[in-house]
Amino acid sequence: MGVRTALTDLLGIEHPIVLAPMGGVAGGELAGAVSEAGGLGLLGAGGGQRDWLEREIDILRARTEKPWGVGLLAWALELPTLEWVIAQRPSMIMVSFGDPAPFVQSVRAANIPLAVQVTTLSDARQALELGADVVVAQGAEAGGHGEGRGTLPFVPAVVDVAGDTPVLAAGGIADGRGLAAALVLGAAGAVIGTRFEATPEALLSAEETAAIVAANASGTTRDRVLDVAQDSAWPRRFTARTLRNRFTDTWHDKEDALRFDSIAKEEFTAGVDRGDMDYLPIWAGEAVDLIAGVEPAAAVVERIADEARWALNSVRTNPGTPPD
Amino acid sequence: MGVRTALTDLLGIEHPIVLAPMGGVAGGELAGAVSEAGGLGLLGAGGGQRDWLEREIDILRARTEKPWGVGLLAWALELPTLEWVIAQRPSMIMVSFGDPAPFVQSVRAANIPLAVQVTTLSDARQALELGADVVVAQGAEAGGHGEGRGTLPFVPAVVDVAGDTPVLAAGGIADGRGLAAALVLGAAGAVIGTRFEATPEALLSAEETAAIVAANASGTTRDRVLDVAQDSAWPRRFTARTLRNRFTDTWHDKEDALRFDSIAKEEFTAGVDRGDMDYLPIWAGEAVDLIAGVEPAAAVVERIADEARWALNSVRTNPGTPPD
Ligand SMILES: Cc1cc2nc3c(=O)[nH]c(=O)nc-3n(C[C@H](O)[C@H](O)[C@H](O)COP(=O)(O)O)c2cc1C
Ligand SMILES: Cc1cc2nc3c(=O)[nH]c(=O)nc-3n(C[C@H](O)[C@H](O)[C@H](O)COP(=O)(O)O)c2cc1C
Repeated sequence: MGVRTALTDLLGIEHPIVLAPMGGVAGGELAGAVSEAGGLGLLGAGGGQRDWLEREIDILRARTEKPWGVGLLAWALELPTLEWVIAQRPSMIMVSFGDPAPFVQSVRAANIPLAVQVTTLSDARQALELGADVVVAQGAEAGGHGEGRGTLPFVPAVVDVAGDTPVLAAGGIADGRGLAAALVLGAAGAVIGTRFEATPEALLSAEETAAIVAANASGTTRDRVLDVAQDSAWPRRFTARTLRNRFTDTWHDKEDALRFDSIAKEEFTAGVDRGDMDYLPIWAGEAVDLIAGVEPAAAVVERIADEARWALNSVRTNPGTPPD
Repeated sequence: MGVRTALTDLLGIEHPIVLAPMGGVAGGELAGAVSEAGGLGLLGAGGGQRDWLEREIDILRARTEKPWGVGLLAWALELPTLEWVIAQRPSMIMVSFGDPAPFVQSVRAANIPLAVQVTTLSDARQALELGADVVVAQGAEAGGHGEGRGTLPFVPAVVDVAGDTPVLAAGGIADGRGLAAALVLGAAGAVIGTRFEATPEALLSAEETAAIVAANASGTTRDRVLDVAQDSAWPRRFTARTLRNRFTDTWHDKEDALRFDSIAKEEFTAGVDRGDMDYLPIWAGEAVDLIAGVEPAAAVVERIADEARWALNSVRTNPGTPPD
């Protein structure tokens, strides 16, 4: 009962649904559950913390024998870490946010499909020239870091330059309507983050999960406030979509002032340390509008796949019968 | 050979394709051509300039006897103007950007379907409570004025609150893949602006049309620069997506300073008066990525409708046949 695409063919998986490699949120429980349900679970390994990865890969392997993968941040990744990840034999490695060039050769030499997540058309072109096996086109609706394009027009623009290389859509997809949209836009599947945050398998506290379920999209913001507050090394170019809170409301569009405001940064750290929701960073995208409650990851995968088929079939195309 | 939706049924038109009421760009030639080709042409009447409307309605009526409509800006509209528009018997009136409440009763009393274009979920709810017959969900990818949501997740969120009321998708749709995406997201059709700017029927100069064809989405910006430069009365809440030029690059994110910089505003006016592309405001959306050249409006309508069917049929849903 699957939708077949170039992605399902490439990986031998059932559904064209990829768990986004959400840093610190997509661990072995969540990635394993998505893979076992017929999607592709990607571990959110950030720059590649070795001890975190070792533990989460063990958890993942206990949950599934199906294909899984790892997502890494290009700007934070070093080659020895990548070599170690390759040695774990994931079925796909995704590199996002930064120059993928230093990593292409090792991944391709190991015969592991390389996905590159991009936020601009010129970066898509570069990824294709480097020989990426899959390009992920991410729109500004997405939770977490990203840039400014909208998913709906960005995906077909990337498809048009990608030739035979499969493109995945990321950003704002939380149900089967969104997956169906990705497919008709020419994508071979969807990379889904925010929706999987509202699962028991995600590495989030009950309070964070509840905030995501309760939020709507106007309660999200895209800026650099939480990165600047943490003196994070994230490249300036990439803003992050997070739930709004008192701290982001105060400093939105004032990041340059925040950078030099050590009192505000101490206030932030203290707020986070005591788990205060007025300060806590919760990365999440506009897809929060489409999340009705917490659901096991396997149920999310199956529902999205079912709904996508339903959405595709629900459009009344009447070839040959013009409406009088 | 049409795709039937609640919109095509409501209006008795062939294709679920609505020409966006682009202020000063969508005149009688363009609206007439779109309607004659089986879509719905909406005149871009801004606040409702009576002499402009009289002239363009005459042109339109010479081109088609099929349904057509008028789009008006809520924040600039006055009731007597609306009454005059109603007396012209359009098949639909669309009201955008501002409170639609003062206008609902007159339009409904005249038995003309009322569409309300919205940019937030709370405005969608208000439009539905007021009794809008159609809700247009506009994303930030759109050309011209708008707000911050992404079309892909915004449309299904509006569909979920709209019940039986048809929803149209606006923002970033320029080909049949985009229309197909709108339909599987649950919309009854698409409102398309930017793509129709690159037609001979649009009220643009050859230089403006060429700039739109040449641009890509990274060459667009969303801000208030051009409104502030013109001391425009547009409500602060609505930014505009335009082609970037030297003036917008200089003043982007510095609108509050521009407001009080009379020298810069004089420089702007002089630049616009001499038709200098470093200053000229050209409203256009991210869909510029998907525009390959100038095409007659009728050909655009037919191609989008054909491609949409193709896109819907191209997805390989294999019910009952899991991939090996
Ligand atoms: C909580 C969270 C953390 C994320 N962390 C990462 C990350 O570490 N690396 C990465 O490539 N993408 C990361 N992303 C972005 C995802 O890869 C993906 O683009 C996004 O989740 C898709 O949009 P959606 O959230 O609307 O589904 C993160 C997203 C979220 C929501
Ligand atoms: C040149 C231009 C002018 C516009 N003027 C208006 C307007 O006067 N009234 C209105 O309701 N919408 C206006 N819009 C917005 C459209 O109604 C619509 O939301 C938008 O064009 C859809 O996105 P797209 O441009 O990506 O197709 C304008 C859009 C453009 C491109």
